[in-house]
Amino acid sequence: MILIKNCAVLPMTSPDDYIDKGYIAVKGSRIEAVGAGQPPDEEHFSEVIDGTGMVALPGLVNAHTHAAMTLMRGYGDDLPLMEWLQEKIWPIEDKLTPEDCYWGALLGITEMIKSGTTCFADMYFYMEEVARAVEETGIRASLSQGMVALAPTGEAAFQKSRELFKWHGRGDGRITVMLGPHAPYTCTPDYLKRVMSMADELGIGIHIHLAETMTEYNDIKAQYGKTPIALMEEIGLFERPVLAAHCVVLDDEDIEILARRKVGVAHNPESNMKLASGAARVPDMLAAGVLVALGTDGASSNNNLDMIQEIRSCCFMHKLVRLDPRAVTAYQALEMATVNGARALGLEDVGVLYPGMKADLILVDFRKPHLCPRNDVAAHLAYSAAGADVDTVMVDGRILMRGRQLKTIDEEMVMRQVEDTVAGFFTR
Amino acid sequence: MILIKNCAVLPMTSPDDYIDKGYIAVKGSRIEAVGAGQPPDEEHFSEVIDGTGMVALPGLVNAHTHAAMTLMRGYGDDLPLMEWLQEKIWPIEDKLTPEDCYWGALLGITEMIKSGTTCFADMYFYMEEVARAVEETGIRASLSQGMVALAPTGEAAFQKSRELFKWHGRGDGRITVMLGPHAPYTCTPDYLKRVMSMADELGIGIHIHLAETMTEYNDIKAQYGKTPIALMEEIGLFERPVLAAHCVVLDDEDIEILARRKVGVAHNPESNMKLASGAARVPDMLAAGVLVALGTDGASSNNNLDMIQEIRSCCFMHKLVRLDPRAVTAYQALEMATVNGARALGLEDVGVLYPGMKADLILVDFRKPHLCPRNDVAAHLAYSAAGADVDTVMVDGRILMRGRQLKTIDEEMVMRQVEDTVAGFFTR
Repeated sequence: MILIKNCAVLPMTSPDDYIDKGYIAVKGSRIEAVGAGQPPDEEHFSEVIDGTGMVALPGLVNAHTHAAMTLMRGYGDDLPLMEWLQEKIWPIEDKLTPEDCYWGALLGITEMIKSGTTCFADMYFYMEEVARAVEETGIRASLSQGMVALAPTGEAAFQKSRELFKWHGRGDGRITVMLGPHAPYTCTPDYLKRVMSMADELGIGIHIHLAETMTEYNDIKAQYGKTPIALMEEIGLFERPVLAAHCVVLDDEDIEILARRKVGVAHNPESNMKLASGAARVPDMLAAGVLVALGTDGASSNNNLDMIQEIRSCCFMHKLVRLDPRAVTAYQALEMATVNGARALGLEDVGVLYPGMKADLILVDFRKPHLCPRNDVAAHLAYSAAGADVDTVMVDGRILMRGRQLKTIDEEMVMRQVEDTVAGFFTR
Repeated sequence: MILIKNCAVLPMTSPDDYIDKGYIAVKGSRIEAVGAGQPPDEEHFSEVIDGTGMVALPGLVNAHTHAAMTLMRGYGDDLPLMEWLQEKIWPIEDKLTPEDCYWGALLGITEMIKSGTTCFADMYFYMEEVARAVEETGIRASLSQGMVALAPTGEAAFQKSRELFKWHGRGDGRITVMLGPHAPYTCTPDYLKRVMSMADELGIGIHIHLAETMTEYNDIKAQYGKTPIALMEEIGLFERPVLAAHCVVLDDEDIEILARRKVGVAHNPESNMKLASGAARVPDMLAAGVLVALGTDGASSNNNLDMIQEIRSCCFMHKLVRLDPRAVTAYQALEMATVNGARALGLEDVGVLYPGMKADLILVDFRKPHLCPRNDVAAHLAYSAAGADVDTVMVDGRILMRGRQLKTIDEEMVMRQVEDTVAGFFTR
């Protein structure tokens, strides 16, 4: 039993639920109590953490990333999307080994824990290596093998996904598996229908890129006579849990479909800005009741996995695009990064701090010049903080970082291994 | 004499000038040598800093801020501009004392040094208190007393500016003074002409907000029949050094005027996004040869003073608005934050690392997961780093921070004083 005391608590259950000085009691993997003031029974706890100066909030959920792409961080920036993919990223990806992906994913997980992410949704290849890194490090993740109908690996991806499914529920339930058909422009409707059948057979959801660019939107409309979202609706994709990354280019009917079908949308503001894909209609989606979560996308189009910076960019982007300073408030973006993320990944017992929920939480150290004076905790988290302000990270009741020291990862070793992996990598 | 060795060097003299492992020798307040490999005469130095794993670059220049506004950080976010100013900011500013501004400025300087800023351009009131904080802390600054013709303090501002001018050149030349007429919509042409006369009499430049919002642009056009920039050109403002903050709303002729008159433009991407002012035409200005620098604006519209995050937001914003991933590259934004900033403030001997220049520099610690692998140092600085990665800060040859420990500021005390200042502040 672990007790965190003397901390502020932003439980993300409602904007009014804020505790200026309180405590959180953790028993096993779950939150037992959240309260104001001093805890009643301090002597019953095996470990007591003094949270003086800290703010506790739910661990951040990165709803869309490609963890192993940390390997390509900063490789080929400031290029048009197709030139970047064709000349930089794809030639490297062709040569990646399972071992490479393990180290890349481990670096990504290291970075995520150090910036307050306790759960992430990943889509890439060699995903059993990513699962291994998740199991070892103690983070929570929803994993999906990327499936590309048009690639030589199109058929093998079904078998790979089935193998990855063996990890579903492992790590005391921290690992969940989804199927990962890449996108409508790389997977035909027939292929997607086979993926849907397999998802239903296994009883799991689907993680897919949808409507990321105007090019995709126009191409799908030209080929099928409807938008990417309407095409997915037509083939019945949304009749099961779906996590849809991007959803940048949407018409009004698309938004209605996403809301009605309870699709989880993973919005990736920094990637969409950096790749110049455009601004998703987030204020419209939120107004229509769409479940909008937040993700970083891969490190090579971001270029970090810092969800606190992503929250900030999300607010800034939509205020700019709408020319409305009220568009996406601090609290709305914090919801996207916590409770909405958990729901979008199909996780019912993470994302808020409440008795009975899984103990996935972080402590942010507010004793910093840029978080002073403490006029508004939610505003400071959204507009002034960054990943480096996260002091303590707990997942499933286990402390993964304390005082910025990682408990399950030798970060020096990981960085050394990644530099070794990458040395000569681009000439392989 | 101080020697920094074993560091990478990004001197910002040209994109090709990058040293993977080298040294910087500092003698008194100036850089004596920058070189690759091992320094020739290590034994001659009184202090040797091992920069292993670090990247040295010129100290960042925050070309437009209001340091004391850290006091209002997070107070009244997510509001329309005029509601925010009228109901939140101005009522507080009416009650600020010189002592309040001293502590607010000291907090801002603390935050700036900790995030790698070595020089800033400030406009506010009680500026002699800000000058005192600059002198004490060792940072470099260009200071201007805000002058508002329409305010009761409109006349007194001339006298205040003259008093502030006594600080010009103090702190071994670290402090320079400009005149700070607030904006065309708060200062009449006649008032501005009196400011121009005084600037010429004192031999100093002018720091002014220009063309920040569409409202200002339309109002000035309705009143004077020309754009804010054209109005300033007509009254002759640009016939002396001018630092123009914002310049968000510009027509083609305005850009031509800014380029021809060598006006220093302080672009504030995060403030412009957060307040929903719009996107300045930075790619067009750069293409036209306008000197564009980078600033954070005040903490209450940002909400931090982290120039590294500002560099990132600058790139993201323009890629999004132009739908072009090549718009404002990593290196261009780094130039805006260093050499362009120095030039815009009229400082000829800071902003690049080169023998004979003032030793204003920072070391960024790249031994972090989010800066690994080291595929591209400029890209990592622009797209993945944040202020907390700055390890060491030197201004005028003096070390102000080393291993993130401040040498001239007791940051705990400053934060305590600011919290005390703000307690009860909003009910004063």
